[in-house]
Amino acid sequence: MEGKQYVVGIDVGGQTSKIGVVDARGNVLAQKIIRSDIYGDDADAFLEALSVAVNECVKDAGKEGEIRGIGVGAPNGNYYTGEVSYAPNLAWAAKKAVKFSEILSSKTGIPVSLTNDANAAAVGEMTYGSARGMKNFIMITLGTGVGSGIVIDGKVVYGHDGFAGELGHTTVVPYNGRVCGCGRMGCLEAYCSAIGVARTAREWLEHSTEPSVLRDVDNITSKDVYDAAKEGDKVALAIFEYTGKLLGTKFCDFIAFSAPEAIVLFGGLARSKEFLYEPMLRAMNENVLKIWKDKVQIVFSSLKESDAAILGASALAWEL
Amino acid sequence: MEGKQYVVGIDVGGQTSKIGVVDARGNVLAQKIIRSDIYGDDADAFLEALSVAVNECVKDAGKEGEIRGIGVGAPNGNYYTGEVSYAPNLAWAAKKAVKFSEILSSKTGIPVSLTNDANAAAVGEMTYGSARGMKNFIMITLGTGVGSGIVIDGKVVYGHDGFAGELGHTTVVPYNGRVCGCGRMGCLEAYCSAIGVARTAREWLEHSTEPSVLRDVDNITSKDVYDAAKEGDKVALAIFEYTGKLLGTKFCDFIAFSAPEAIVLFGGLARSKEFLYEPMLRAMNENVLKIWKDKVQIVFSSLKESDAAILGASALAWEL
Repeated sequence: MEGKQYVVGIDVGGQTSKIGVVDARGNVLAQKIIRSDIYGDDADAFLEALSVAVNECVKDAGKEGEIRGIGVGAPNGNYYTGEVSYAPNLAWAAKKAVKFSEILSSKTGIPVSLTNDANAAAVGEMTYGSARGMKNFIMITLGTGVGSGIVIDGKVVYGHDGFAGELGHTTVVPYNGRVCGCGRMGCLEAYCSAIGVARTAREWLEHSTEPSVLRDVDNITSKDVYDAAKEGDKVALAIFEYTGKLLGTKFCDFIAFSAPEAIVLFGGLARSKEFLYEPMLRAMNENVLKIWKDKVQIVFSSLKESDAAILGASALAWEL
Repeated sequence: MEGKQYVVGIDVGGQTSKIGVVDARGNVLAQKIIRSDIYGDDADAFLEALSVAVNECVKDAGKEGEIRGIGVGAPNGNYYTGEVSYAPNLAWAAKKAVKFSEILSSKTGIPVSLTNDANAAAVGEMTYGSARGMKNFIMITLGTGVGSGIVIDGKVVYGHDGFAGELGHTTVVPYNGRVCGCGRMGCLEAYCSAIGVARTAREWLEHSTEPSVLRDVDNITSKDVYDAAKEGDKVALAIFEYTGKLLGTKFCDFIAFSAPEAIVLFGGLARSKEFLYEPMLRAMNENVLKIWKDKVQIVFSSLKESDAAILGASALAWEL
């Protein structure tokens, strides 16, 4: 690999996958997007389309033969095994383990390193974003679900089996909590994801008579709650207050584990910063063990969402 | 330090401190115990007594001039700063930060490495005990309080500030939980320490009319609850069932963080293994994210309690 000065970063998502050719400074020289959701359960067909797109993207960048490696962030991607397995949002990997790295590498002739999407984002944030210079932080992705990437001593934590960092599936409501997509009850993800926020809205509206613009919305989404909060809607504001408080309180558990310098937030719901930040920070500092009071930062990702994932994935490839 | 083939391990406790001279195989060649609780707030007096005891112990072992380093495990001991600070159970460090490593090193002329007692026990367990060969595990000490030492990739997690691994102060009862010694509410330590078990007994007896041999005991301790459970007392058995269930359920949060191979239990209350193990394991496997179901072991320390701490502390000294 000596002398090859470029890498490819790939962010595999449920609907689309983004591919970027990246140089050592984190400049994205060329980008491509392909659909992830049109291959049914045929993993090989998706990987074939992906490898074609990688080759095209490399060609677009004018860097053929100069790619050192491909780094991939994918839901349920396992760093140790190179497999994407039982990922509910990827039809072609929902019910089986796909040897992702092995297949992509054989199709492209380039070495591949894989991890889950949240870990990739954490690496991106550490290398190019808000966590630059930090050796101990916890990245929480607040998107459709809640993911996490944990960095200790400058290294992503993979754990015994490569699946570490499932903080979305820690418990915030121990008794009679909401059923989560994972089958457990009371998970952080069931409350503090985009879907969780929408569920809170529907539950609260059903169990109160409080007036709210949200009552006129069919199939409420977290975006609707955000828009309503922007207009000063009291129910919407209370929903963010509640969500922020749950997050900030739960962060105290995470802090007690790894004593991070910061919690870094990322993902669609994190864009509701203006409503989440204050209750979150307050709840964290009110509940955290005294030694950490007012000491742990909460910061928001400074990278564009697509860039963070591509850049993070690409950073993995430099290690190849 | 080249050529010096022995180390000293020191376990600093609230009442006594244990000193041992240890060889590379973990044999304790000589041991000494001194009181920790007779020096009031005079840290220097304690450290003077400790350094005298270290010298005597080295002399007893016949290893003068052959000590490579001293490793110390102490409550609130900080690996980065070498300080013991604000340790409620040590009068001479309860209200200040004591430059423990620096002072002991200058008094003995031997380099000193310090960490907290639970981290030292984790290192002991990894080097000589139940966690031998494991690179990812979480040590939980169930004593008067609940401590923890977290090992990831074969290394103790110290975090940004050296205080990582305070799992006793994560939350198990988020609403109206018991007030913990740390000032927070609902901490694991407030329920699952020796003191927590005694509190559960007193609360339950007060709020029920269930017959129990514990009703005849003044100032119930966890030992009383254990003895009653041994006799088949239903209330005592239910207390262990409850305690085990809280622990096992909370372990799921810890597993989601670092995906350990095992949870290793240690300390006085862990001796109630026969009553805690089954409900703990059941609650863990019922609540854990599917990928870890029936995959994470719960093991009990195989080292004598005093040895684990001395050996763990001594293992730190080899790195010096």
